[in-house]
Amino acid sequence: MEKRIFQRIGLVGAGLIGGSIAAALGRRIADAALIVHDASPGNAAYVAERHPNGSTGQFADMADCDAIFVATPVASIPGQVEALLALGGDTLVIDTGSAKAEIVSAIAASGVDAARFVPGHPLAGGISTGPGHSTPDIITARPFVLTPSEATAPAALTKARALLETLGAHVVEMDAEAHDQLLARGSHLPHLIAFALAEFAEEEVRDLLPASFRGISSYAASDPRMWADIFRANREGLAEALETFKKRLDLIAAMADEPTPGNLLETLETAKARIDALENDA
Amino acid sequence: MEKRIFQRIGLVGAGLIGGSIAAALGRRIADAALIVHDASPGNAAYVAERHPNGSTGQFADMADCDAIFVATPVASIPGQVEALLALGGDTLVIDTGSAKAEIVSAIAASGVDAARFVPGHPLAGGISTGPGHSTPDIITARPFVLTPSEATAPAALTKARALLETLGAHVVEMDAEAHDQLLARGSHLPHLIAFALAEFAEEEVRDLLPASFRGISSYAASDPRMWADIFRANREGLAEALETFKKRLDLIAAMADEPTPGNLLETLETAKARIDALENDA
Repeated sequence: MEKRIFQRIGLVGAGLIGGSIAAALGRRIADAALIVHDASPGNAAYVAERHPNGSTGQFADMADCDAIFVATPVASIPGQVEALLALGGDTLVIDTGSAKAEIVSAIAASGVDAARFVPGHPLAGGISTGPGHSTPDIITARPFVLTPSEATAPAALTKARALLETLGAHVVEMDAEAHDQLLARGSHLPHLIAFALAEFAEEEVRDLLPASFRGISSYAASDPRMWADIFRANREGLAEALETFKKRLDLIAAMADEPTPGNLLETLETAKARIDALENDA
Repeated sequence: MEKRIFQRIGLVGAGLIGGSIAAALGRRIADAALIVHDASPGNAAYVAERHPNGSTGQFADMADCDAIFVATPVASIPGQVEALLALGGDTLVIDTGSAKAEIVSAIAASGVDAARFVPGHPLAGGISTGPGHSTPDIITARPFVLTPSEATAPAALTKARALLETLGAHVVEMDAEAHDQLLARGSHLPHLIAFALAEFAEEEVRDLLPASFRGISSYAASDPRMWADIFRANREGLAEALETFKKRLDLIAAMADEPTPGNLLETLETAKARIDALENDA
């Protein structure tokens, strides 16, 4: 009977993730009201209008919500979660930021009671940003990581899990550090690679750059402000992933300098097997 | 009247590139005979059968060819070009290897007269290998780089250019070192990145790896033997590209540690602009 528990939902941040959460809510619990807030009133209205029961509103209008999603840029999440928790009541607050440890520690440092806050992150991924690309499919049937902190009340975690499962998400629980390492390796480093590789895309050689260069560097077409925020928020996880990655690059390059190809070939074969397994899994 | 000049063409190596050259020949100069050789007789027959005027043969059968393409793995190209040049006659020999300086210097060191050899490389790119994926479209309307050496006769270069333009390729001339730097940055380093990144695709996190990781690491699904050959042949160019790339990675990561986001944001914006221009160009 999850649908009865959630009659009124808040959404702060009407970008791609917020818009997709709204779309999933509209499909799965259409009768629950949705109150949408965004720094851009146009984005808020765009998302609210596409929900069967949506309207725009301010933080104060969300005080009696059963749950509020915070889907704003990662640098502004702590302040917004703190403000929403300060409204009091019984409202569950779930964020969607891509770097969890920094968000959790900033909120802990603020002194607010974070029992009703469940740190989260939908593994939605993609280059497009903005509510115009929203789709429930990046929430439904996709992993949604929850990283409860020491402050998170077990009841809040249970409630968050119930709401996300109602939306069809695959809920995965892990601690913030494990999440940040996973995302550093799986998303933040890949984007850093793309931004760094872009340096080679000089105008004189642009027509001659092969498909592999284009495919890998295409992730640097992502929103620079969003990625500046994420790299800063998860700078420790990113630095650790980068060190491991550079060692691996050096190791393979050094093997290319050995008199016989054995080690190099074996290493490339192992890598290929891992990626074949990844692709067959998808 | 290029069609009259080229009445008999040889092809050594019936993989993706060789098969695609055969397909382009079949489409553009169907009346010219094609003699195909490959270490795998099955691959040679597969490509020969799909050409309107094709047959399989040995090196000796190519002695009276007007031109021979050598499209074998990069490590075996020098020996094959030397053997083909040693057949004598007036035959033009064009290779398609992805690392030019090493091929040119190996052939120079062999002492063979390389006047009729034109080092080349079609910028075809892609993950699939094997003649089954052949298409004339990776030759026609695509750049085909020629890197004439000091030994290359001007007449041979002119003839090679005429043949490739008959196939609809965009011929680009540069020296071997410039080619190898371009390919190190544009193809060899991107593939090294993919093979190195694959280390993070551990079984436990496989389901959780985001789209950017999957997209970038997908290039590690390429043929390990081919890439071991290429990394070894262009190890100097690759090492140089890697050093520049690592410095860039470190620089951006260090910016994420600065107290204000200004430098980081500006750098990511510059990178994005470069990739947007690349994509708009394509």
